[in-house]
Amino acid sequence: MTHIGRPEGPLSPEALEAALRRIGAERYHNLHPFHKLLHAGRLRRGQVQAWALNRYYYQSQIPVKDAFLLARMPTAELRRAWRTRIIDHDGDAPGTGGIVRWMKLAEGVGLAPDYVTSTEGLLAATRFAVDAYVHFVRERSLLEAIASSLTELFSPGIIAERVSGMLANYAFITPETLAYFTPRLTQAPRDADFALAYVKENARTVEDQAAAMAALRFKCDVLWAQLDALYFAYVFPGLVPPGAFVPEDHAADPAAGAA
Amino acid sequence: MTHIGRPEGPLSPEALEAALRRIGAERYHNLHPFHKLLHAGRLRRGQVQAWALNRYYYQSQIPVKDAFLLARMPTAELRRAWRTRIIDHDGDAPGTGGIVRWMKLAEGVGLAPDYVTSTEGLLAATRFAVDAYVHFVRERSLLEAIASSLTELFSPGIIAERVSGMLANYAFITPETLAYFTPRLTQAPRDADFALAYVKENARTVEDQAAAMAALRFKCDVLWAQLDALYFAYVFPGLVPPGAFVPEDHAADPAAGAA
Repeated sequence: MTHIGRPEGPLSPEALEAALRRIGAERYHNLHPFHKLLHAGRLRRGQVQAWALNRYYYQSQIPVKDAFLLARMPTAELRRAWRTRIIDHDGDAPGTGGIVRWMKLAEGVGLAPDYVTSTEGLLAATRFAVDAYVHFVRERSLLEAIASSLTELFSPGIIAERVSGMLANYAFITPETLAYFTPRLTQAPRDADFALAYVKENARTVEDQAAAMAALRFKCDVLWAQLDALYFAYVFPGLVPPGAFVPEDHAADPAAGAA
Repeated sequence: MTHIGRPEGPLSPEALEAALRRIGAERYHNLHPFHKLLHAGRLRRGQVQAWALNRYYYQSQIPVKDAFLLARMPTAELRRAWRTRIIDHDGDAPGTGGIVRWMKLAEGVGLAPDYVTSTEGLLAATRFAVDAYVHFVRERSLLEAIASSLTELFSPGIIAERVSGMLANYAFITPETLAYFTPRLTQAPRDADFALAYVKENARTVEDQAAAMAALRFKCDVLWAQLDALYFAYVFPGLVPPGAFVPEDHAADPAAGAA
């Protein structure tokens, strides 16, 4: 699909945007069965804990990757725009910001904050995927680093599904627990609009457009691989890797043991 | 288990070796159900293809990580000893070396060499795990980088199981296909002996010994996560991530679709 028109030369900015949105429609992690189980209320509490625990590491590394990105931006104008992301996640005083709000979610589902921040029980696959994202932003071109953030184009939809589904379906989830997501509904579109405008403006050659699309595919892989690992360890077949978090209510699929 | 004696001070070199071997006994990927299915002949040809394809990327990056390690070694003596690993994998003429032999394995199970080297069909989780290993060796202390290679202490056992099991159980596997493994039976112990002697000699404090053990645990995670991803995508439930290799004989578990 994404190859249409490429032999003839670069895409128009509008066609590039359409191609980027198509990548999301095909690969964003709202399509993953773990997400579907999560918002449909079909997970046990321990499985939601595993999600919150692992996703904490992703949240905690977002300002790190944004700091690497900031460090590579050539103008104050770009850095001013991008630094709001760091402020959103780190807050402007103790007890504020996205990471703290994520910790409230983790506590709300019954995890001890020290255990969460230690990352002791993290799935290795989560660490590898998240670190791959940080390294990507640090090592690739600025265009690719910015394009890799474009999954935020698709996040308002998944957040809306997640919040309404989780509130409706889990007795242990309250609006306070999910406070992380409320500001994201306005932050993510603002951030995504900026990044999309940058990519449309700066990816003008066939090569740069291909690199931007590959960067977005890479980022979809980063998110998808995290849900694969959660699903495998905690849902089906439920094979927790050595050393990773084992929920109190964990139950491996009997077929997994037989394998 | 590994904490015994640590409050009192550093372990003796012999006790450190025993602690390192215990990590392997608990976490090496010979314990993974995918390995058990592989050597027991319980995989379809396409599942063996997926293993060969993904493991190729690991093989291809071994000389890269060893080059980073070499670059950080302070003496000609250490570099002379370590560079044999690069020679083993890259060969000393076209058509020689471990990577070429792995490619023969991949071709032997029916994969096109160009497809394998393109890494197009690679599982993202494989790329993330392997790249995490390269980054680890590049960024951590030399002691940790060397200690992370110590999984080779445990590899002769898994190779013996794998070769005899695969030859006995798969009609499409020949001794030529598995030629990769024969030299590894002597190379791996030689390399592991050197690395183990280095770690025993240089990890003398409680902190350094803990770092060496953590490095070996990390490396076990790198190997384990690769088999988790293979098992999840190709065995059970058989959910191939977007863009990854789909074998001709692929069959997802019906329960996965229902999820």
